Amino acid sequence: MKLATLNNGRPDGQLVVVSADLARCVAAGRIAPTLQAALDDWNAHAPALAALSVQLDAGAIAGQPFDAGNALAPLPRAYQWIDGAGYLSHLERVRTLNGSKDAELQSARPLLYQGGSDSLVAPTAPIVVPEGDLAIDFEAEVAVIVGPVPMGATRDQAASAIRLITVCNDVSLRRLVADDLQNGFGFFHAKPSSSFAPIVITPDSLGEAWRDSRLHLSVRIEVNGTLFGQPNAGTDMHFDFADLIVEAARTRKLTAGTIIGGGTVSNRHDESLPIKRDGIGFACIAEARTVEKLKYGRARTPFLQTGDTVRIGAVTADGRTVFGDINQTVQRA
Amino acid sequence: MKLATLNNGRPDGQLVVVSADLARCVAAGRIAPTLQAALDDWNAHAPALAALSVQLDAGAIAGQPFDAGNALAPLPRAYQWIDGAGYLSHLERVRTLNGSKDAELQSARPLLYQGGSDSLVAPTAPIVVPEGDLAIDFEAEVAVIVGPVPMGATRDQAASAIRLITVCNDVSLRRLVADDLQNGFGFFHAKPSSSFAPIVITPDSLGEAWRDSRLHLSVRIEVNGTLFGQPNAGTDMHFDFADLIVEAARTRKLTAGTIIGGGTVSNRHDESLPIKRDGIGFACIAEARTVEKLKYGRARTPFLQTGDTVRIGAVTADGRTVFGDINQTVQRA
Repeated sequence: MKLATLNNGRPDGQLVVVSADLARCVAAGRIAPTLQAALDDWNAHAPALAALSVQLDAGAIAGQPFDAGNALAPLPRAYQWIDGAGYLSHLERVRTLNGSKDAELQSARPLLYQGGSDSLVAPTAPIVVPEGDLAIDFEAEVAVIVGPVPMGATRDQAASAIRLITVCNDVSLRRLVADDLQNGFGFFHAKPSSSFAPIVITPDSLGEAWRDSRLHLSVRIEVNGTLFGQPNAGTDMHFDFADLIVEAARTRKLTAGTIIGGGTVSNRHDESLPIKRDGIGFACIAEARTVEKLKYGRARTPFLQTGDTVRIGAVTADGRTVFGDINQTVQRA
Repeated sequence: MKLATLNNGRPDGQLVVVSADLARCVAAGRIAPTLQAALDDWNAHAPALAALSVQLDAGAIAGQPFDAGNALAPLPRAYQWIDGAGYLSHLERVRTLNGSKDAELQSARPLLYQGGSDSLVAPTAPIVVPEGDLAIDFEAEVAVIVGPVPMGATRDQAASAIRLITVCNDVSLRRLVADDLQNGFGFFHAKPSSSFAPIVITPDSLGEAWRDSRLHLSVRIEVNGTLFGQPNAGTDMHFDFADLIVEAARTRKLTAGTIIGGGTVSNRHDESLPIKRDGIGFACIAEARTVEKLKYGRARTPFLQTGDTVRIGAVTADGRTVFGDINQTVQRA
């Protein structure tokens, strides 16, 4: 089952069921007006949404063309956005830039931070950043949306709480990371609102691409139309999503609709940019710059500037977008 | 105008208007079913809610008895909970315990952390904590709920965005604070769900008690029935709520329903516990322990144990509760 949220002028938008080929959609308002409403009573609503999905795919319902340009983030505002650090090579590469802390804690238990969830950005909305030289970066990630998770959840409870999967862009202001880390209070200023792909998909509808609580697909990133990276999200993910959820629920329960990011997708390699057609590359600029510094003594890839574009999407082996693409332009407030 | 949220079995509860004397209430469902719905369209809904409040206070509507025991947190789940550090004496006292970072950044600009907002605890629900010796503490705070705040807001924009005021208990697991600070990723594990008083009040209805973006009332705390503190929230608040909101909106907008805590209320003094009837005391255990260590060489006041009770409420000069009381018992998960 594939779901999306269309802009209807309301803060939470309008839930729609999207066809398997992403071409058409049908309003789900008779079942649940919004994605949060569906998640609030998932056991009751999911079967009805799945039945609607079957009818749409069979052509029994014509529906309407699915316009990703009119999609909001699947949850335009959420009650929780937690970002984990599943890929250690991302941490290792950015640590040299940001002055982060010792590595020991990071490989034993995943790091998590609490992000702002009050305004999650639509896939084609601009990345709006404040004035100033803030070293604007993207971070391409896989994210899951969970149902209720009890405090002290087991791995099995965590894995089975995963309702929906998508990709996101955890926009980062690298110039502010060091100050935030120094304060110790979290990435309050360095991480403005994150952006999301238009479509969320249930684990069963991803087939072989979802297994071991990991998404086994390449996440393809283009900056200004040039391939920047296509690391596989199922490769080198040291902490899987069950690990991240267990860690998130150590001292508190998680309520339905909590979004958990897997951290910047990152595969181990020592290529630098530009990458070849079959290269791996990077899912954020900071990592590319670290590899360049090690190889050439200086970073060559600039951070994002006003007017730059970033396209992010998970793709099948034959290059088709799975969740629809995030496609954004950087803009000053 | 005074508002509360009653438990009706739904995640967001039922919005009610409460009488000036806190004795009666009336459902606001015809205007807005939930507090978030009221905040989403405040300019349209606030006048209608205020009119209902006038009718209730005049006796034109009988309403029903207001039962604080059936109240949820005013926003039982919110899109954002940001906790600031408005009182420097709190920071100074806990810093010696927690190994926090240098003081310079903290007096120039307020520290903020992003807290979990997916499940905010009802005023009389238990404080549920995981097993283990986690050094359970309370933090009595003033909190405001804001309307939309643009990125880069001015102090005037910030101050005028304050819609509602209340008090809360930012439960803290002190044993986990040092690890969280060491990671630099924020108080993820050390700060489980916060609890809220039953009633939120508009600034105009607080009269002289709300001025200069500060609440000029004592916040009274009892632990196991014994007075623990009654610091005045308007005294020694170095960063007022306008400062905190401006800082929170430095790199991103805030959407309606964002809750901002002012930090543990803390007045400068060197008294130790037990305090006299007119003493000041403390709004968290960690501060009491710091003063004891300095005075006696060791901390004497224990952290909370299972079965301990904490009562927190802002009070008028003649001792009447203003927002209703938080009254909780510690319980293991």
